[in-house]
Amino acid sequence: MSKTLRVAIAGLGTVGAETVRLLAKRSRIIASHAGRPVMVVAVSANSKNKNRGLDLTGIDWTDDPLTLAIRDDVDVVCELIGGSDGVAKNLVEAAMASGKSVVTANKAMLAHHGTELASKAENAGVVLAYEAAVAGGIPIVRTIRDGLVINELSRVYGILNGTSNYILTAMHETGRDFNEVLAEAQELGYTEADPSCDVDGIDAAYKLSLLSALAFGHTVDFKAVHIEGIRSISAVDIAYAKKFGYRIKLLGFAEKTNDGIRQRVHPCMVPKDTLIAKVEGVFNAVIADADSAGTTLHYGRGAGADPTASAVISDIVDIALGRGAPVFGLPVDKLFANQKTRQELVRCRYYVRIALIDRPGVLAHVRTVMRNQDVSMDLFIHNDHNQHEKMLLAFIIHEAEENSLRKAMDEIINLNDDEDLTVIIRIVDL
Amino acid sequence: MSKTLRVAIAGLGTVGAETVRLLAKRSRIIASHAGRPVMVVAVSANSKNKNRGLDLTGIDWTDDPLTLAIRDDVDVVCELIGGSDGVAKNLVEAAMASGKSVVTANKAMLAHHGTELASKAENAGVVLAYEAAVAGGIPIVRTIRDGLVINELSRVYGILNGTSNYILTAMHETGRDFNEVLAEAQELGYTEADPSCDVDGIDAAYKLSLLSALAFGHTVDFKAVHIEGIRSISAVDIAYAKKFGYRIKLLGFAEKTNDGIRQRVHPCMVPKDTLIAKVEGVFNAVIADADSAGTTLHYGRGAGADPTASAVISDIVDIALGRGAPVFGLPVDKLFANQKTRQELVRCRYYVRIALIDRPGVLAHVRTVMRNQDVSMDLFIHNDHNQHEKMLLAFIIHEAEENSLRKAMDEIINLNDDEDLTVIIRIVDL
Repeated sequence: MSKTLRVAIAGLGTVGAETVRLLAKRSRIIASHAGRPVMVVAVSANSKNKNRGLDLTGIDWTDDPLTLAIRDDVDVVCELIGGSDGVAKNLVEAAMASGKSVVTANKAMLAHHGTELASKAENAGVVLAYEAAVAGGIPIVRTIRDGLVINELSRVYGILNGTSNYILTAMHETGRDFNEVLAEAQELGYTEADPSCDVDGIDAAYKLSLLSALAFGHTVDFKAVHIEGIRSISAVDIAYAKKFGYRIKLLGFAEKTNDGIRQRVHPCMVPKDTLIAKVEGVFNAVIADADSAGTTLHYGRGAGADPTASAVISDIVDIALGRGAPVFGLPVDKLFANQKTRQELVRCRYYVRIALIDRPGVLAHVRTVMRNQDVSMDLFIHNDHNQHEKMLLAFIIHEAEENSLRKAMDEIINLNDDEDLTVIIRIVDL
Repeated sequence: MSKTLRVAIAGLGTVGAETVRLLAKRSRIIASHAGRPVMVVAVSANSKNKNRGLDLTGIDWTDDPLTLAIRDDVDVVCELIGGSDGVAKNLVEAAMASGKSVVTANKAMLAHHGTELASKAENAGVVLAYEAAVAGGIPIVRTIRDGLVINELSRVYGILNGTSNYILTAMHETGRDFNEVLAEAQELGYTEADPSCDVDGIDAAYKLSLLSALAFGHTVDFKAVHIEGIRSISAVDIAYAKKFGYRIKLLGFAEKTNDGIRQRVHPCMVPKDTLIAKVEGVFNAVIADADSAGTTLHYGRGAGADPTASAVISDIVDIALGRGAPVFGLPVDKLFANQKTRQELVRCRYYVRIALIDRPGVLAHVRTVMRNQDVSMDLFIHNDHNQHEKMLLAFIIHEAEENSLRKAMDEIINLNDDEDLTVIIRIVDL
């Protein structure tokens, strides 16, 4: 058996701690798979005295993660600190500069600096692996980069954030409203005290930007992602979706258009009998539409200490086996620069929910405004008045350009004395 | 850019021809991914003059595939001839013996000789890759071998044969009977003139034996797979399944038991709202229950020229990148020898459909026989008499040992004057 692969772990949160634990617990089987022993030689975290239930005997502790990057006795650095910049990025750069391969679960860092870091990995001739950064327990990075390597993809999409999917699932199952379910998700530890990253679509957009680069061969460009979250979805929208035969899901799409690769994360209504509609709770799913392989779907746990540690270690074993690949499938100089596409030009069907002051002729006026914008209604529900004595309307709108729909809605909203929320949810027929 | 990887293709059926075509059509992007050009230098097939729509300019033709194994100008041999023995196996062995890596889509050969061939690959220090042999367009070999490498799996299961799934789906959607739908599948080219390999579960069992070896680290043992096909399923069973809230699927399972790894392929009733129940038509799906990563599902096209060629080329690119791994994840000397488990000891719930001569007291007798074998009914449908004036009974049986159920059924069948088919379908609550 050949030389031991020596690993340093920076960050001992739940993922880091589980990675250390699993590498010890499974050391024999890992050595068999990797063809050589894999050993943690050093760790770093904020508080040495915190009880993490870990046996760190024989493992060096350092308070300064940056020292891990320059140790002679380390081959691979696992960056599990998090944060798009600061220590995490400094560590990754320093480790690669000193010829060490890096494994990271840091989607924010890669979404913001992925191309730059890929260049640095290439120049240093080291591996930068991040299976754990996208959809945790689902080996989606290798699937797209390696398994579908020959394919031209037309679209990659999916449920990329377990917390928001948990919230939407619970809203669907219980009829409760967003805030109530969010509070529950926080209690269960499914989301942070500040849930913004999850429910505002940011976490999903991080992952989408990486999937898009892998799938289409462009530089990572987080800023090009159009992002909307799920805070505006209310119990009444869930109920209408059911009535119309849909489920509401927060989806991320990266798709080929004449305009370039369009990247977007927003709530969608999807037909209730599609596979993606059946992905419930904290689960994630990624679907790739490929020309040769056809459509494939990959489903699993997108987060949590165990699935993420599993992904981190799969990357370590690859490195132990000497298996490398360009960070985003292609060398950086072959990645093209994608342009942000214009979301306002997207054409699709829509669900629209609106509350209007109940005046004579208001419905006729709504119809006229829509007709003038070349927007037409398919289904229509005119329901109870809400607590402000307004009339609640829900439509399904025939395929239209987003621009036109928004103009019509702005004009309709002006009929109100005060501002009231209009909810627009794109319908995706998959 | 480094040295060209020189490929020989043996077998120009639909998969072989598509592989040649794609390698030419995508040569530039493949070179970018692989870090070097990949070029087909020689091909072999039965009939040189057959029109395959292929441009073979500059590619050497040979009538004898075995010569591909010993050419100095070939680095990788793709075996796309098929058949568990004979030329295919001779070619693979000869190629590896002369230091060439091999890519194959040949599930029959690997199911019968996988361990032996893995040993030969190891001894020769070459790669033996077979992503295309299991579930075509789904990169399931890398997913289990690499992506889930750290995990202990408790079970791998799924829909592993597209033809039988197409037939069951069509039976479900149209209410038609097996033979009628089979004839249609043959017309559509979804199955061979002799459909036995597909509808009798053999093709699924080939794939299952490979998945099981990968998932659990044992030697490949096709003979250990308990195999039943779908010929006995009739329209009435499909109708009853609907009534009871199930879908009938041909599933393959490899699962850890106290008895060893149990491998089986047989029709199952699965709850209609599970993801696997929603896998329709020619699609395949594989589910892995893993301790760290949790449950993952992988869905896609299991057959067809394009998905299979896509998988073949993904293996070629891996070889071009110098990415190897032990054939079944572990070196052969670390694979354990699994025992065939006793299917008769399996405990589960069952659907039973039986036709009995309608005599006074017959139902009471059925109950008595069952009670004596410790088998008890849950749901019960006593339906129309069939064309032979027999009484058609359908039960759901509470969890019982298969042994006991079969004894009870044998005794009940003896009530009949002639032999009539009893259909037993295991219920799997996933």
